[in-house]
Amino acid sequence: MPAFPSSVVIREVGLRDGLQSIQSILATEQKIEWIADAYAAGQREIEVGSYVPARLLPQLADTAELVAYAKTQPGLRVSVLVPNLKGAERAIESQANLMLVPLSASHAHSVANLRKTPDEVIAEVARIRAARDAAGSKTLIEGGIGTAFGCTLQGAVEQTEVLRCMQKLLDAGADYVSIADTVGYAGPAAVRELFGKARALAGERFWCGHFHDTRGLALANVYAALEAGVTRFDATLAGIGGCPHAPGASGNAASEDLAFMLADMGIATGIDIARLLRLRAKVAGWLSSETLHGALWRAGLPKTFAPAPTATLNA
Amino acid sequence: MPAFPSSVVIREVGLRDGLQSIQSILATEQKIEWIADAYAAGQREIEVGSYVPARLLPQLADTAELVAYAKTQPGLRVSVLVPNLKGAERAIESQANLMLVPLSASHAHSVANLRKTPDEVIAEVARIRAARDAAGSKTLIEGGIGTAFGCTLQGAVEQTEVLRCMQKLLDAGADYVSIADTVGYAGPAAVRELFGKARALAGERFWCGHFHDTRGLALANVYAALEAGVTRFDATLAGIGGCPHAPGASGNAASEDLAFMLADMGIATGIDIARLLRLRAKVAGWLSSETLHGALWRAGLPKTFAPAPTATLNA
Repeated sequence: MPAFPSSVVIREVGLRDGLQSIQSILATEQKIEWIADAYAAGQREIEVGSYVPARLLPQLADTAELVAYAKTQPGLRVSVLVPNLKGAERAIESQANLMLVPLSASHAHSVANLRKTPDEVIAEVARIRAARDAAGSKTLIEGGIGTAFGCTLQGAVEQTEVLRCMQKLLDAGADYVSIADTVGYAGPAAVRELFGKARALAGERFWCGHFHDTRGLALANVYAALEAGVTRFDATLAGIGGCPHAPGASGNAASEDLAFMLADMGIATGIDIARLLRLRAKVAGWLSSETLHGALWRAGLPKTFAPAPTATLNA
Repeated sequence: MPAFPSSVVIREVGLRDGLQSIQSILATEQKIEWIADAYAAGQREIEVGSYVPARLLPQLADTAELVAYAKTQPGLRVSVLVPNLKGAERAIESQANLMLVPLSASHAHSVANLRKTPDEVIAEVARIRAARDAAGSKTLIEGGIGTAFGCTLQGAVEQTEVLRCMQKLLDAGADYVSIADTVGYAGPAAVRELFGKARALAGERFWCGHFHDTRGLALANVYAALEAGVTRFDATLAGIGGCPHAPGASGNAASEDLAFMLADMGIATGIDIARLLRLRAKVAGWLSSETLHGALWRAGLPKTFAPAPTATLNA
């Protein structure tokens, strides 16, 4: 049996992937409170927003303010999504620690959503790398390969195409590469296989797994990826997000449920789960008109649950 | 990486574990329709009820009628829960194919729920075995070890105690033994470890894994048990059931979500998932006042989903 990693990072992407997918809009003050509370609960990597035109995603228009605030928290790795060079320039200017450039391995999804083919996105990553280096910036570049397990538009997506894009992203200068099951098509056998190949290809430059819980398999998929040696996962508080093609369907892996699963497995995350559940209750109050997800908040922690020894370090 | 089994049985326990845990009571005709539709969807193992006194569980009082009906379906393995020798005598008389005798590895839970210690249950299993053999009956005896990962009353439950009970159940004449996470305390690392030890101890006499989704981990736990070589899992349609200690919390693993995960992994179950989803919609109509669970029913099957070749065999 493969060994599990001793520690794992849960990157909170609720402020970006979550909030961009729902109707409710949070005020900047609420988002800052969310970041502060997540930090206090031990989260050390947060994707705070996207540098996209405000007319496209008005709910994320305050991303620069959030980066500026989040950068004041010691040891917090602040990431943003950037769709292109223009967004990357804003990320570099605001000194975000990391910028995620999304690429869709499904050509149909890529053209429909990003208005670029995968190879055009890769060429843009090369320009972003050149701009980053020319600016002497330390902002890391992550190439995130989405629709890696299939696509609601195109249908099947070949593993060979995912791995081809991954190699080209690395060659183009992405510091790290990641895999996302954008539409919730992944199952754990496919995850084990593709993430295993991706880890073999990218080695330590493989960064993160991103799973949606559309069909209830997000945590099983995380488990399969853990066995393939993946040590960082995206998740959203209360599982917010969702699939626009399936109204009411579950969103991302829920941060609090994932934190519980990892703690139960003896894997350190630095997260104080009780504190994260209090933050969940607060955010649930702000998002009272939305369908939220996750199971732990209702059942509570088991009587036998003992927090991992590292949890208090970051509290 | 461990190989996955090529086929797995999903035993439907919604008519027993599901219906005994919720307020709604289904009419016998509805239960018969459920059994008929589940059979038509390819399910070949169904726990139809319990032989317990009707005053304790009036909603399961029609178990003998259901066994009689289910026995008319060719190739359907009909199982019932029996808490003691008296129930076992009814199971033998009705010619159920299998009777599940529950044992709680938590002494506190055992005494509170079954009014017997684990060793008293084991002694009862020996009496059941003697009665079965004296009757020349073919009804199989399954010893099901519950609260195997902890207990809401007692707290921690030691693996050594679970394995001790398992060996003694086998010695007492149980044909098969199973493990249940009765209260939803299990995580996949613990599952992989305990089920691995159980399989090593019981070999082919290890029968079934039973997981509750109380904290969202049921399918991750199934995945971990698959890696330990387990090939049979209990589940309930729409995940009905639940934990009396956590109102509104998720119930059992949802049969339809589990069937989807296994099919996606290339593991044959014989189940026609689209048909099972239609049955789910029907049962959801009958149970309109209950909180139901599962994710697949809302999102639907992926565009890329191809039913396993064996699915049509049983349709």
